[in-house]
Amino acid sequence: MVKRKVILDCDPGHDDAISIILAASKESPLQIEAITTVAGNIDLEKCTYNALNVCEMIGLDVPVAMGAEKPLLGKKVTAGDFHGESGLDGPELPSVPVRKPVDQHAVDLIIEKVLESEQKITLVPTGPLTNIALALMKEPKIKENVEEIVLMGGGTFGNWTPAAEFNIWVDAEAAEVVFESGVPIAMFGLDVTHLALADREVMDRVAAVDHPVAHFVFELLEFFSKTYKDVFNFEAGPIHDACTAMYLMNPDLFEFKHVHVDIETKGEYTKGMTSVDLLGVTKKPPNVHFAVHLHQHSFWDRFEEALKSYAEAPGHL
Amino acid sequence: MVKRKVILDCDPGHDDAISIILAASKESPLQIEAITTVAGNIDLEKCTYNALNVCEMIGLDVPVAMGAEKPLLGKKVTAGDFHGESGLDGPELPSVPVRKPVDQHAVDLIIEKVLESEQKITLVPTGPLTNIALALMKEPKIKENVEEIVLMGGGTFGNWTPAAEFNIWVDAEAAEVVFESGVPIAMFGLDVTHLALADREVMDRVAAVDHPVAHFVFELLEFFSKTYKDVFNFEAGPIHDACTAMYLMNPDLFEFKHVHVDIETKGEYTKGMTSVDLLGVTKKPPNVHFAVHLHQHSFWDRFEEALKSYAEAPGHL
Amino acid sequence: MVKRKVILDCDPGHDDAISIILAASKESPLQIEAITTVAGNIDLEKCTYNALNVCEMIGLDVPVAMGAEKPLLGKKVTAGDFHGESGLDGPELPSVPVRKPVDQHAVDLIIEKVLESEQKITLVPTGPLTNIALALMKEPKIKENVEEIVLMGGGTFGNWTPAAEFNIWVDAEAAEVVFESGVPIAMFGLDVTHLALADREVMDRVAAVDHPVAHFVFELLEFFSKTYKDVFNFEAGPIHDACTAMYLMNPDLFEFKHVHVDIETKGEYTKGMTSVDLLGVTKKPPNVHFAVHLHQHSFWDRFEEALKSYAEAPGHL
Amino acid sequence: MVKRKVILDCDPGHDDAISIILAASKESPLQIEAITTVAGNIDLEKCTYNALNVCEMIGLDVPVAMGAEKPLLGKKVTAGDFHGESGLDGPELPSVPVRKPVDQHAVDLIIEKVLESEQKITLVPTGPLTNIALALMKEPKIKENVEEIVLMGGGTFGNWTPAAEFNIWVDAEAAEVVFESGVPIAMFGLDVTHLALADREVMDRVAAVDHPVAHFVFELLEFFSKTYKDVFNFEAGPIHDACTAMYLMNPDLFEFKHVHVDIETKGEYTKGMTSVDLLGVTKKPPNVHFAVHLHQHSFWDRFEEALKSYAEAPGHL
Repeated sequence: MVKRKVILDCDPGHDDAISIILAASKESPLQIEAITTVAGNIDLEKCTYNALNVCEMIGLDVPVAMGAEKPLLGKKVTAGDFHGESGLDGPELPSVPVRKPVDQHAVDLIIEKVLESEQKITLVPTGPLTNIALALMKEPKIKENVEEIVLMGGGTFGNWTPAAEFNIWVDAEAAEVVFESGVPIAMFGLDVTHLALADREVMDRVAAVDHPVAHFVFELLEFFSKTYKDVFNFEAGPIHDACTAMYLMNPDLFEFKHVHVDIETKGEYTKGMTSVDLLGVTKKPPNVHFAVHLHQHSFWDRFEEALKSYAEAPGHL
Repeated sequence: MVKRKVILDCDPGHDDAISIILAASKESPLQIEAITTVAGNIDLEKCTYNALNVCEMIGLDVPVAMGAEKPLLGKKVTAGDFHGESGLDGPELPSVPVRKPVDQHAVDLIIEKVLESEQKITLVPTGPLTNIALALMKEPKIKENVEEIVLMGGGTFGNWTPAAEFNIWVDAEAAEVVFESGVPIAMFGLDVTHLALADREVMDRVAAVDHPVAHFVFELLEFFSKTYKDVFNFEAGPIHDACTAMYLMNPDLFEFKHVHVDIETKGEYTKGMTSVDLLGVTKKPPNVHFAVHLHQHSFWDRFEEALKSYAEAPGHL
Repeated sequence: MVKRKVILDCDPGHDDAISIILAASKESPLQIEAITTVAGNIDLEKCTYNALNVCEMIGLDVPVAMGAEKPLLGKKVTAGDFHGESGLDGPELPSVPVRKPVDQHAVDLIIEKVLESEQKITLVPTGPLTNIALALMKEPKIKENVEEIVLMGGGTFGNWTPAAEFNIWVDAEAAEVVFESGVPIAMFGLDVTHLALADREVMDRVAAVDHPVAHFVFELLEFFSKTYKDVFNFEAGPIHDACTAMYLMNPDLFEFKHVHVDIETKGEYTKGMTSVDLLGVTKKPPNVHFAVHLHQHSFWDRFEEALKSYAEAPGHL
Repeated sequence: MVKRKVILDCDPGHDDAISIILAASKESPLQIEAITTVAGNIDLEKCTYNALNVCEMIGLDVPVAMGAEKPLLGKKVTAGDFHGESGLDGPELPSVPVRKPVDQHAVDLIIEKVLESEQKITLVPTGPLTNIALALMKEPKIKENVEEIVLMGGGTFGNWTPAAEFNIWVDAEAAEVVFESGVPIAMFGLDVTHLALADREVMDRVAAVDHPVAHFVFELLEFFSKTYKDVFNFEAGPIHDACTAMYLMNPDLFEFKHVHVDIETKGEYTKGMTSVDLLGVTKKPPNVHFAVHLHQHSFWDRFEEALKSYAEAPGHL
């Protein structure tokens, strides 16, 4: 089977890290063309360091390119409280990464990969959409060779403000560029990512996988769950970003509605909101496949399988 | 028992009409001090005509005063499609109303009633908040003698736009005035009113009550349900506004969260949204008791009882 | 000659005070129907006290009614620095006013006067437009019997922000209501009021008029000039609000362009700006006679004459 | 004397073309490192064609790179009416350009030139600020080696809307990026460019210069003057963009105020306005040298001299 080519554009971040680990797992139908980093959960430097470290840990050899160090407009804001000082607090990272980022700017790497590929490429942003927007602004021609933008962000409610989710809020203008680009979008917002809760049972299953990568994931989940308990009083931590990898690997796990989504950039209280037209009142043509449901039972089975694949493919690590 | 004094500020409208009928029923713990009308579902003239006609039908003798004919800012918008040409399409209205509106402006009637009453007064707006805002702007002193503003409007999602419910959307600035006034607010938004669905079973129970008022309610429900089926593909019509009367008569029917709500007046896509801080991320002090749940079984029992009370108190009609 | 009936809606304020004094002078072609007060330069209480005091000093017997104590939306802001603690710092006010405000709300007095008058009435707001907007919102029928709204506010540049003049900035939504009302508007913005500079020569001429009222005006000018020197490094103080009275008494003193003006209520940096379409680029129909020039020589001659009329009509004071 | 290195970022456009011609004249103290094009007055294709054609005509050999084909956000808008169908209507263009644009994107050319130069580089945008903003967003490090951004745009009044000038209006978000970048800015807005009127006398002087380049400029002026007569009823056409070259070649021609300028991106009527704090009311630190005056007599002397230099340096064309 021809693997689906993806570029993971991320700001690791616990759930970004898990998403990379899943996408790179042994049986994955995905071919990771590159990882690009963007300021979001944490500074660009730290995101990049974390991305490299994850690659190191799982033996993933792909170009890692640094992108935007702040949103298109306005000042940088990070979500440090949620991910700790390093952006990946919890596990003790196994080593200083030997890998280094490539010299090319993330935006140019994205443009080059997309324009050069025979097969269309899927972009998978799990942080603010700054890099993707810059690529679309600098080289609109990439639209024709992007298969889909599979993103984590937004929702019908918010977590950073009552109306806005963090990724979209941080760079609402970038989101506007992406959502108005005409490229097909699969959107994993809070409505569905809050169903991907790594509860005690899930964590026990992860703990039972005897492999350093699974152990690393366990420690990520442990930290993230504690944060969600402390800040939001959630009983378990939602692995937001990893929904994108899970979908790409298992499209049948999710239910979607094809709807119109607008990005609010001007509101006083609603900046960064994704206005999702579930009732069809705007009469605008759909631009987003909006994930409304995930099948939890199968979701965690497949999740576990992906982690087990590391243990079962000894040559890898 | 001392009855709770209320002023019903409305734009009938099917669900407004039902709300009046409930509030005026035989065992009601409410004393209706006045009905004031406001442009909303339909023109001010028609709203007022409808309000008078409902009073006529149920033998309710209270002053009915006309208020604002358009929102504070911008142009008048009505929701004619939802309520038909008359604003109360469906039942054949039994007569031309003999009752006439009083000469006083709704805003002055509200101010006078509130300032003169020994007992605090509860305002119950079920249309756009124009009259209430004008009263607060013209005579801020009324704040001290308003017990609570019990309103239908808003929610964490919209029905007129993806983000905004009709009543708040029509006059977002008026809503801002009300929500920032400091007066205690009980808010019945779409989250809870969409649980008050008059389905086939409910309609059968209403049909079984042998009294012209119940029959009138039945015809209102029939029309409204059909509208919701046609426009939104709902299986039953939600009796939005009537949640206010149901709450005032039976406070135990609802569950609330005490939260902060901001009104968006500036957004490009989100004007008229009520930003409800359910997660507490704004850290702002609560200003609204936001209804999050209704106990459906009891809700419809009490609803039926209220209608039966008309049949059981023969002197009334 | 039939006098033109005016209602002065003001927030005295040095230049408001001068405007009242001019309008009430002996040969004035204006009949002051009422003075209504609004929070603006200073608190409503102080404005009202100042208005009464000015009436006392010039022997003017007209109803003075209190209006809005804050703008339609948002919080009260005053321009205390410009007018001192009393709102009328400078002259020693001659007495505690014997006159008292009437019991009626300014908004109701305006509505009543306008609806009852056979001759159309001109409204002359020289503070924020809150009262006028409330009157238009509560009783839209007054539009038909208002001859013109002659106001001081706005301009193609600002003094409170780079884009906005104080009166409009304080209550931009009220301004929107007024400018979109369809009532004819004569607008005296900063473009023209900054030409009405009471310089040393003007002050000498005022000082030479031997009458307590002229002396009072002199002291007002002295304080106001000093403020403008200190804050803006102006060589003389502009008597903004008094341009309205000067125009009503001497229409030939000013040149106008008939243009479209929009009120910005949403901008981040431009809230309260009057967008004056001098080049006609919007193609919208004109709604404002925008004063672009005043004939300075004649302006100060007529100004002096008005003050002298107090001295020449001894029965008055 | 070391020449000042400049990159001309433009959308020719009559006045852009004149600006290039002036900057490239014989005695010019400027070294043109590159010309970059941006959609603005006209489509990117046509702008680029026009820029190449101008280079051809004056024998200027510098890299010409194509940049953004639309603003950062929203749709492309051109000012076709002002510049005719070609963007340079009027003169018959002497030839199809032999020169071709370089392969590199304008944004990358700007970044590369700036980062590689020992001497700091001055950016001279005379169209929408899209390219400059993209360069700043993609590679913030360029800030350290940009000497100044010398731009035509904005003003205290508008020409595209009552509040906004075309260049800033087209891409207000790009302007926000540039004005908030911290790079020194010299701003030539409408306040000063409307003083650079090529009236009949000026045109006679240009006509008297016996050289094809001067003749070309004459034809540009003729067309542009006619446009300004037709659209705005101006007696002469302002050569907006050429003020930048004139300033760079003759800094003494202009007077400036060092002020704070904010870019309005959110207003309903004021989008794209440059809010220029001439009175210092914002108390924000100055970020712009705002041109308030040009010395007209000398301006046109120097202008004529620059054109004459073409005739006096015969080897050039």
